[in-house]
Amino acid sequence: MKIKKILIAGNYEEEFKKYLTVHLPQQFRFLSVEEITDEDLSWTDAYVGFKPSPNFHPSYFKWVHSFNAGVNNYLEIDGWDDQKVLLTRTVCSFGERISEYCLSFILRDLQYHEGFQRNKLEKKWEQKTPKMLRDQTIVIFGTGAIGQEVAKTFSLFGATVYGVSQSGASKPHFKEVADTASAPALVSKADWVISTLPLTTNTNKMFNKEFFHHLNGSFINVGRGATVDEEALIEALDTGKLHSAVLDVLETEPLPESSSLWSREDVIITPHISAVTEINEAIECFLETLRKLENNEPLPNQADTLKGY
Amino acid sequence: MKIKKILIAGNYEEEFKKYLTVHLPQQFRFLSVEEITDEDLSWTDAYVGFKPSPNFHPSYFKWVHSFNAGVNNYLEIDGWDDQKVLLTRTVCSFGERISEYCLSFILRDLQYHEGFQRNKLEKKWEQKTPKMLRDQTIVIFGTGAIGQEVAKTFSLFGATVYGVSQSGASKPHFKEVADTASAPALVSKADWVISTLPLTTNTNKMFNKEFFHHLNGSFINVGRGATVDEEALIEALDTGKLHSAVLDVLETEPLPESSSLWSREDVIITPHISAVTEINEAIECFLETLRKLENNEPLPNQADTLKGY
Repeated sequence: MKIKKILIAGNYEEEFKKYLTVHLPQQFRFLSVEEITDEDLSWTDAYVGFKPSPNFHPSYFKWVHSFNAGVNNYLEIDGWDDQKVLLTRTVCSFGERISEYCLSFILRDLQYHEGFQRNKLEKKWEQKTPKMLRDQTIVIFGTGAIGQEVAKTFSLFGATVYGVSQSGASKPHFKEVADTASAPALVSKADWVISTLPLTTNTNKMFNKEFFHHLNGSFINVGRGATVDEEALIEALDTGKLHSAVLDVLETEPLPESSSLWSREDVIITPHISAVTEINEAIECFLETLRKLENNEPLPNQADTLKGY
Repeated sequence: MKIKKILIAGNYEEEFKKYLTVHLPQQFRFLSVEEITDEDLSWTDAYVGFKPSPNFHPSYFKWVHSFNAGVNNYLEIDGWDDQKVLLTRTVCSFGERISEYCLSFILRDLQYHEGFQRNKLEKKWEQKTPKMLRDQTIVIFGTGAIGQEVAKTFSLFGATVYGVSQSGASKPHFKEVADTASAPALVSKADWVISTLPLTTNTNKMFNKEFFHHLNGSFINVGRGATVDEEALIEALDTGKLHSAVLDVLETEPLPESSSLWSREDVIITPHISAVTEINEAIECFLETLRKLENNEPLPNQADTLKGY
């Protein structure tokens, strides 16, 4: 595919400068999302940014590249046609970032950080042997690039790692992958369930009362907030089916002050930072995608607009 | 070496039972440390336990096996002669345990657990991008089995890992190993210094004012408490040379209530649990050592009583 004109949605001219020292044949426009006019959209071959402009429509472009891993904000707009417009997303170090995030919170629990911290306040020396990763069973929803990287990380430490995906097709680093219908049997074995799922019509409110009913462990959400029925999650915490939850993504972000999740001791909230795109990395990933596109190389970060990720 | 009689210092008869289903030719005595008489010591070929009995003397035995990784409590008693008595120690999963311990606290810092926890109490949604392990420089004092396992773990995540040892001999998983005299140049580059050092006459108070002077990072001690001059450590925290400390081992254990370390926010205290010996694992390691001994196989867990570890 030949791309001549590129619209960068965001004032990233400074950040791009250091990467554009090698002359690129393309013309660039840098505009904040609010400034983008219909003329800009008609002018460009490619739209690149974290989110669509208010006047965004897929039919304007040959190529849309999201600075996020998730593309749901783009796909909420109608009119996508994989034959006419290519949609790609930023993957880069997301797998590593999300792995370190999950690892940090699971180790925090296994190593009793909170208990020892409480004891410290009381100057109490009370031994308790940390649990080891190799004795943990971890079920990861989503077996794509990110899920695989998380699986790889925990497998390295000897944990037993299962996957759940729509198809149940086996994937590297998972002991076994189940399809969604067979998930309950795995979920009931899990010390930890980690969701890396994108938001699609299939995954919307997938972690509901029925799901938590099978659980007897903890839940980490690094996918999308709307995949969780938060009321069901709170109920599962109250009944003890769900031991604790680590939520980096929420149904409404920022989480409203009125949410009861804020004040629960059994819930950890982080402000959607497990896979933050650093702009430098996003630019590198974009330029790499552009290069592959020009050379007609395969694009592992291409999104499927029908599947929704 | 032929061992006929074994004295287990500790009432572990129950725990041993399940491992002694295969008939072993040796005779065993199980006695608590306090119950052990001179007659028991004269009777046995081998002394096995967490610590020496009050009447312990190396000349009684052919073999002494410590249930700990550290053997300093045995070596405090005079009269050791490597030609006459073999000293072995428990290694087993210590490397993995200590790796997970260190990883948990470094990730806790890089992922801003405390900051996000504080924000949660105030219902504040404030994004901050976690730091990644691959951008960390880690200097590990001690390049033996445990140090190597820690180095391996952090290297897997792309961290830059240096080692420091008496000889400076290169070892697997370290980008570079410096000898003690050349350590300051590495220490000044470190985001984290981890000590896995045993207590010997050489390492006693090794982490002193001079050491902390070179530091501009954090310090984790999973070796032995007396390797640290705690006054110098506190001073380094006060002057900001030392950003924070994670101390699993202390000069006096349990840490006295009067210690100012308890109430410092920049210090994490855990009660010597990073490499706890679980009795089952200790027994497995002991039996494996006994098997190797009987077959004249090399003993990677043999201690050098002159070096002191």
